Amino acid sequence: MEGREEDVRLGANKFSERQAIGTEAQSEDKDYKEPPPAPLFDPGEFSSWSFYRAGIAEFMATFLFLYITILTVMGVVRSPSKCATVGIQGIAWAFGGMIFALVYCTAGISGGHINPAVTFGLLLARKLSLNRAVFYMVMQCLGAICGAGVVKGFQKSEYQMLGGGANVVAPGYTKGDGLGAEIVGTFVLVYTVFSATDAKRNARDSHVPILAPLPIGFAVFLVHLATIPITGTGINPARSLGAAIIYNKDHAWDDHWIFWVGPFIGAALAAVYHQIVIRAIPFKSK
Amino acid sequence: MEGREEDVRLGANKFSERQAIGTEAQSEDKDYKEPPPAPLFDPGEFSSWSFYRAGIAEFMATFLFLYITILTVMGVVRSPSKCATVGIQGIAWAFGGMIFALVYCTAGISGGHINPAVTFGLLLARKLSLNRAVFYMVMQCLGAICGAGVVKGFQKSEYQMLGGGANVVAPGYTKGDGLGAEIVGTFVLVYTVFSATDAKRNARDSHVPILAPLPIGFAVFLVHLATIPITGTGINPARSLGAAIIYNKDHAWDDHWIFWVGPFIGAALAAVYHQIVIRAIPFKSK
Amino acid sequence: MEGREEDVRLGANKFSERQAIGTEAQSEDKDYKEPPPAPLFDPGEFSSWSFYRAGIAEFMATFLFLYITILTVMGVVRSPSKCATVGIQGIAWAFGGMIFALVYCTAGISGGHINPAVTFGLLLARKLSLNRAVFYMVMQCLGAICGAGVVKGFQKSEYQMLGGGANVVAPGYTKGDGLGAEIVGTFVLVYTVFSATDAKRNARDSHVPILAPLPIGFAVFLVHLATIPITGTGINPARSLGAAIIYNKDHAWDDHWIFWVGPFIGAALAAVYHQIVIRAIPFKSK
Amino acid sequence: MEGREEDVRLGANKFSERQAIGTEAQSEDKDYKEPPPAPLFDPGEFSSWSFYRAGIAEFMATFLFLYITILTVMGVVRSPSKCATVGIQGIAWAFGGMIFALVYCTAGISGGHINPAVTFGLLLARKLSLNRAVFYMVMQCLGAICGAGVVKGFQKSEYQMLGGGANVVAPGYTKGDGLGAEIVGTFVLVYTVFSATDAKRNARDSHVPILAPLPIGFAVFLVHLATIPITGTGINPARSLGAAIIYNKDHAWDDHWIFWVGPFIGAALAAVYHQIVIRAIPFKSK
Repeated sequence: MEGREEDVRLGANKFSERQAIGTEAQSEDKDYKEPPPAPLFDPGEFSSWSFYRAGIAEFMATFLFLYITILTVMGVVRSPSKCATVGIQGIAWAFGGMIFALVYCTAGISGGHINPAVTFGLLLARKLSLNRAVFYMVMQCLGAICGAGVVKGFQKSEYQMLGGGANVVAPGYTKGDGLGAEIVGTFVLVYTVFSATDAKRNARDSHVPILAPLPIGFAVFLVHLATIPITGTGINPARSLGAAIIYNKDHAWDDHWIFWVGPFIGAALAAVYHQIVIRAIPFKSK
Repeated sequence: MEGREEDVRLGANKFSERQAIGTEAQSEDKDYKEPPPAPLFDPGEFSSWSFYRAGIAEFMATFLFLYITILTVMGVVRSPSKCATVGIQGIAWAFGGMIFALVYCTAGISGGHINPAVTFGLLLARKLSLNRAVFYMVMQCLGAICGAGVVKGFQKSEYQMLGGGANVVAPGYTKGDGLGAEIVGTFVLVYTVFSATDAKRNARDSHVPILAPLPIGFAVFLVHLATIPITGTGINPARSLGAAIIYNKDHAWDDHWIFWVGPFIGAALAAVYHQIVIRAIPFKSK
Repeated sequence: MEGREEDVRLGANKFSERQAIGTEAQSEDKDYKEPPPAPLFDPGEFSSWSFYRAGIAEFMATFLFLYITILTVMGVVRSPSKCATVGIQGIAWAFGGMIFALVYCTAGISGGHINPAVTFGLLLARKLSLNRAVFYMVMQCLGAICGAGVVKGFQKSEYQMLGGGANVVAPGYTKGDGLGAEIVGTFVLVYTVFSATDAKRNARDSHVPILAPLPIGFAVFLVHLATIPITGTGINPARSLGAAIIYNKDHAWDDHWIFWVGPFIGAALAAVYHQIVIRAIPFKSK
Repeated sequence: MEGREEDVRLGANKFSERQAIGTEAQSEDKDYKEPPPAPLFDPGEFSSWSFYRAGIAEFMATFLFLYITILTVMGVVRSPSKCATVGIQGIAWAFGGMIFALVYCTAGISGGHINPAVTFGLLLARKLSLNRAVFYMVMQCLGAICGAGVVKGFQKSEYQMLGGGANVVAPGYTKGDGLGAEIVGTFVLVYTVFSATDAKRNARDSHVPILAPLPIGFAVFLVHLATIPITGTGINPARSLGAAIIYNKDHAWDDHWIFWVGPFIGAALAAVYHQIVIRAIPFKSK
């Protein structure tokens, strides 16, 4: 039985999912109920230690994320020959690998966002309250600033000379190119987050979430492989803000809006795609 | 008991599987029944929302696949020094990694094919209906065209100048070499898909499918490591078609048939190998 | 039910975890009890074969760890062109990959520490007795010395000429930089170890430990990506000691204290962070 | 309960395992019984289809293994600049990644050896019969020869000129160095195979085998990172034989014994280490 389900899931048409188009979509999955949306404002959270602990975990994770990744970037850019460094591919591994390890480590404490765009996407899908989302974003940005600051502490003058890991649109690309790259890149990431943590899917296939942090980390790695030549790859406003504040030169600020607007649009599109197209939540009969 | 089974599975002879050669093969596995073959034509699917949703998911996955991979290819080829890019190995990671992440994300919606050759192989094994297979292939090709188109939008003149990620047989190799490389490469991929999602195996070892998207992604990565120097590696007709249509120069079209005929032959051989040699389905007593 | 839990864990606020701040933290998790701390001195272990077997396993794992990693380092440094080697990134993979494979292989025998800093962190958290911790550290150091010695046996003069994989602070960095890099790097590793093997979390999400050796290995890989340019990356006093003893030149010994003090401080901070901030163990009502 | 077990396994002393030294070792694990050793000669297997199917699966896996890996090697060595290829690290990924994917795919059919040294190690541990072991080794060697032959078919003259992926001891190393590298390298691989598929461990921690093919593949990858500069890395006599027969030049045959003697010694040492030191099987009270 389990075996047949498996077969169905990974390579076949789903007879058990056949359903009429429209508002009755998925109504035959009797054993599954969508979790209720999180309240928009949930004052009870303020009196819970786990709320503050989650914020601390987001701070710590984003701190370590920026520390390792920006230090890796600096090690590559300061060397005259890229061959004697971990290379651009090594930078992509640093970003993707840290997200894998940190999502794994903090998923049980805070949900493992480590990225305001992820928090924003999950907020739109009503997976967490607005007050929690704002708290997370603030902690993520503070962590990112501290992480980049520690890297600058190692090699101050080099840091300023070599760009400090800040996200800018590369010469030869327009601001529109940069914005587009950030939108689609963040879409890839948040689409993976939604797919990997989907509640309905988990109800059917309990083993799905086991690997979840791995495809999420890979998504970050892959977007870096593709868009480092265009923007240095943001897809995480906290990462872009932290590097920009510590680097603090004009041309880092000129493009900075791109690394907030792009990721938030991408995350919103991913939330819409998953909740409306894939899950068809608005059309469900209550 | 579980422990002994384990030991048997990964390093020993299988006493429980001893059986007479011939038509009675596997008939002693009483608790397992091969799922019935999918109907060739299944009109009921057309009135099911999940059918269209699966097509949309295939479109979206192939779109993102081409977008990330072709953008990575362009980033590598446009740089005079490969050392200052993610390198050829980075290209292989982009293809394999995207398949890993996308199979993980879409397996529960459409089966996660993202490749007409995979769909063709599974059709031959009667894992999905003909109408579903055709619908998937059309959506995959449309997604691939759109994905390559967006990449061209970033850097139009460079895209045309630098080959646009289109698959061609490299100088020094014959068309026969290219066809052979595509056949064996696609065999590796579809063989992994069949092994990783095998229904009988899942019935015995329920943990097998947990990792399934990972070896499937690795198979794509490995074939790229080996055959990028020969054909740029197709093993996915939608990927080859999307890049060829957007690039649209003569020499991309000259070899284009190779990237349909090769993958389809490879997928058919893998289906035959798995269904007849490994599963011995035609010889089973009903 | 399982599905909803999943959703909550990876992307939402945890209603079930709401609790008053302070000493009653987590007291509502009725089905979970913190395991009792290990005794400080446990003489009964000396008469158990599993105690000595665990020590042998730690010796063997650290031996293989140094053998593979230092041999990889030597292969890279002896080549005039890094492009014709596995490169610095390959070195990082060797360290991280070995920790992944060895933690996987020895976790069931000794807990899979392979690193005195990890043993020290777990000792502070009272996960093992002092006598076991000291025994592990001695065996790890002996294994590391033997592993580096075998590598030297392959190519004696080159080994001495090319640094022998010993950890030193690179020119252009102060001893303080090196110490800082070791502290934060070891924090990343031990923080991952605590998160991945957390008893309370495992009680809730039984699938968490399945992947545990993978993020732990990735943590080692990532710290190497970031800090190889600064210290060559120690974050493992046995690894640093083994290479230093076999190399045995003055400038390897000058900085050697950094590779004990740094990792032990980092491990202690990670133990404090996890046990006090995340688990709030001191504030729990008994 | 599960949670506490977890904690114990990955970071603590095992009270439940405390036992007297000597012949009573492990006798308190009441719920676990070592599987009986496989018979030395098992004629019944010859009348079982699954026996022949397992041989075919070993042939096919070793064929694909040599095809992908030797093709990757040729792609790297034929390029004047290693930077424009997947590099030496890419070769290591090809070997390790193929073992990961193929062990995953064939574990349920033949046990997934794909390597006479692995078969030899498991034979010594009495995990399979002698007739099955010999049959596997013959099929593995045939598969390897065919795989290397197909690669030569692509580029005959280059293949002969560029070494054909054959294993030889590199200039600057003695035959003793090469033998040592093969012994320890194969030990790492077979030690990982034994640890990952250990029956007793699986009895306790049922999730352990889920990842088994991944550390096994990583072990192959890591040994390649370390010893490609010394011997090109064999640790698999079928791989060495296949490349040597197809390449067939004197200097490939001069060292060829090293790539049989080394791996077989390494595999035997790993079998002894695991069965006697770790499992203490000879000392167990029956």
